[in-house]
Amino acid sequence: MEDSKVTKKFCEYLVGLDNKDINDKAIHEAKRCLMDWFGVVLGGSTHKGVDIILKTLDELGIAKQATIIGRKEKTDVLHAAFINSYMSHVLDYDDTHLDSFVHPSGPVWATIVALSEKYPLNGKDALRAFVVGFEAETRIGRVLFRHHEEQGFHMTGMTGGFGAATAAGRIMGLNVEQLQRAFGIVATYSSGLRAMFGTMSKSAHPAKAAMSGIYAASLAKNGFTSALNVLEAPRGYFLVNAAETDIEEVVEGLGQGFEIMKNSVKPYSCGVVTHPVIEGGIALRTTFSEQSSEVDHIVAEVNSMVPDVTGKKTPQTGLEGKFSVYHCLAAGLIDGECGPDQFTDSRVQNLKIVAARDKVRLLVNPDFKEYEARVSLVLKSGERIVHNVPFALGTENNPLTGSQLENKCFSMAKQVIGEEAAKHLIESIWCLDETVELRKLLEISNGVAI
Amino acid sequence: MEDSKVTKKFCEYLVGLDNKDINDKAIHEAKRCLMDWFGVVLGGSTHKGVDIILKTLDELGIAKQATIIGRKEKTDVLHAAFINSYMSHVLDYDDTHLDSFVHPSGPVWATIVALSEKYPLNGKDALRAFVVGFEAETRIGRVLFRHHEEQGFHMTGMTGGFGAATAAGRIMGLNVEQLQRAFGIVATYSSGLRAMFGTMSKSAHPAKAAMSGIYAASLAKNGFTSALNVLEAPRGYFLVNAAETDIEEVVEGLGQGFEIMKNSVKPYSCGVVTHPVIEGGIALRTTFSEQSSEVDHIVAEVNSMVPDVTGKKTPQTGLEGKFSVYHCLAAGLIDGECGPDQFTDSRVQNLKIVAARDKVRLLVNPDFKEYEARVSLVLKSGERIVHNVPFALGTENNPLTGSQLENKCFSMAKQVIGEEAAKHLIESIWCLDETVELRKLLEISNGVAI
Repeated sequence: MEDSKVTKKFCEYLVGLDNKDINDKAIHEAKRCLMDWFGVVLGGSTHKGVDIILKTLDELGIAKQATIIGRKEKTDVLHAAFINSYMSHVLDYDDTHLDSFVHPSGPVWATIVALSEKYPLNGKDALRAFVVGFEAETRIGRVLFRHHEEQGFHMTGMTGGFGAATAAGRIMGLNVEQLQRAFGIVATYSSGLRAMFGTMSKSAHPAKAAMSGIYAASLAKNGFTSALNVLEAPRGYFLVNAAETDIEEVVEGLGQGFEIMKNSVKPYSCGVVTHPVIEGGIALRTTFSEQSSEVDHIVAEVNSMVPDVTGKKTPQTGLEGKFSVYHCLAAGLIDGECGPDQFTDSRVQNLKIVAARDKVRLLVNPDFKEYEARVSLVLKSGERIVHNVPFALGTENNPLTGSQLENKCFSMAKQVIGEEAAKHLIESIWCLDETVELRKLLEISNGVAI
Repeated sequence: MEDSKVTKKFCEYLVGLDNKDINDKAIHEAKRCLMDWFGVVLGGSTHKGVDIILKTLDELGIAKQATIIGRKEKTDVLHAAFINSYMSHVLDYDDTHLDSFVHPSGPVWATIVALSEKYPLNGKDALRAFVVGFEAETRIGRVLFRHHEEQGFHMTGMTGGFGAATAAGRIMGLNVEQLQRAFGIVATYSSGLRAMFGTMSKSAHPAKAAMSGIYAASLAKNGFTSALNVLEAPRGYFLVNAAETDIEEVVEGLGQGFEIMKNSVKPYSCGVVTHPVIEGGIALRTTFSEQSSEVDHIVAEVNSMVPDVTGKKTPQTGLEGKFSVYHCLAAGLIDGECGPDQFTDSRVQNLKIVAARDKVRLLVNPDFKEYEARVSLVLKSGERIVHNVPFALGTENNPLTGSQLENKCFSMAKQVIGEEAAKHLIESIWCLDETVELRKLLEISNGVAI
């Protein structure tokens, strides 16, 4: 195991990626991630958890130099990365890499954006740093997943730091050994319990991943020592956290494409495993509305993760609704959508939705992937009206279109920065290249450039 | 499991401890811990890791308000807690609670000292906060230990945050529910891999424990939500990290005494499990010196943790020497002591020490506790010269005397702040009471009050 040298091989690959190795398709995906990220960050920027974090940091006394997106307050760079990453996750509306269950954009974009205030960083280089950071966290995550997640760990808290450190390392110019050391530091900082789901503390996981990534890369650049072989070390990251995994998988097929091409962007602001069911609900909405009194019960056939992650039968709050596939399906059937409006306390308690929710029966289909579902309305007559969802909207084989993505971003951004700035932000993200400094986006989103 | 309410019971106990509940013996032990802590912090204050951390934070840009002990630089309160805790551990010379293998003083005193710059805090209240913080981290640690430590986690990284949050919570006046929430936050921040041993990253574990404890208590006070039942929750701290443990042990025998009475203070600056062997070496020093050429080999009978934690046979650096019971025993036999001078690169490579080291044979005795050892010089004639160590110096049944403790603190403090200030510091610690502000110690140790 000690001879496997996975850490070194992986860091050599990541550090060795030239600009020319990162193709236009990957860059385009990175822009899509950034668009989605800015939307969910602005959408999350008014969350009460953010108010509390900012108040707390102000009381404790911190430097105020770096931008908090969508807010007037400033913090130091480390906490700006923390809070911008926090905001990206707080609506449970951010993207997911389904092979690892990592929410990849949150910690990595927060890291790059925070560093753009200290390092001159043009748009294209920022996008490249993102592609490489994405690769690091998801390749490590897909090996750790799924046993580790079932055990009770939150994947993004466990792996986001690798993505953040890798992106920060590219921006700072770390060499291979320095990145190995940064990996050691983030590995020993990695944590995050699923017991936090449904509380403000859940979003602290991607948040601290971003912060630890910047800190680790900065320390490693200055000569701080750490295990150089943390992934394969006898008491290292994998053997301690998930001993039964095949660590070599981390470096399998390097250079044959980027994980970013497999990203999923959420059309609905709740656990990604509920999405195919929601889509089934939306498709059956008209039928359900017309034949409501005839429906005896509703069968949702799903992947095995669905009851595990979102099995709450009688949610009472908006937040609990995000972890209830029963509520999500009912909202799809009644409202025809599943955005932030479907996850308020009052919507979760709405009698019509509760009545539909109570009719839902969950059935795990061991052949179904996370992006697959089948929803059936079973009428009192015994007749079944069935809708199959082979690839949920937003996943690799059925991605959001450019305009769907723009609409998602716009709908949240306009509420915080107004329609003009929201449009400007969206246009500017599509136009990111070597001539544009990334920090221009911060100016737009915080009202300076308008 | 969800009905066990361990988190709530434990927090009720910790919050409910009145000043009168914390007896004079416990307060005296807290003073001894503080004395030892100041010594090792000052001793560690010139470590290269500290230079790198301070340089890195300066580059990243942080506020500069709070005292770094023994240094001119300042940082914000969060990082002052981080660095002061870092320094306490970097010489591997700080105290140990043997039932949990937690190094208890580091994170808790660093937390209290950092907060003393924001909250008016007299000496007696600081000592009380320490006793309660000590109780929290060690009661949780002793349940997690030993399986979890064997698995590859560093106990202080995993549990120090609970101590820090509890002490911070007492100073900030948290109620029971707020402390439960702070526990949730530190639990989800808890991490620390043993793969970091022998690198600068090891001391980041108690460091980040202190920082997360302050942050968690501050967030919880302001209403940040977290799991209220993190210790017993289905995907909570114990079930995820050490499922086979009996969680109820956390609250067994509450009120029947304080864990601080079982603390061990290190007379030697290396892994605590090597200490009984070192003592055997020191006791046999004269004999060994006189009969060196007659000694065929040396047998060290030890507790089972010794090879596991300190089994390095051929250390090359001072730092590696700390994790080599072979070197430690040789240093005891040759030098008659095992302080920082025995853990330089050149001392570890010294030919006389290497020759003695190569004669050592390790033998695990399953009946031996961590504080127990037997060292035998086996002569070429077959004769054995044996020294038994039933209770190593510094452990519960054979504590350092007050003057031994003073000497340890003085020897390190004088090198950084001079003899006068070192004496003043020691006297002031013994005199801590309601009339003295804790921050006076910071002024003394940083040259303001002299």
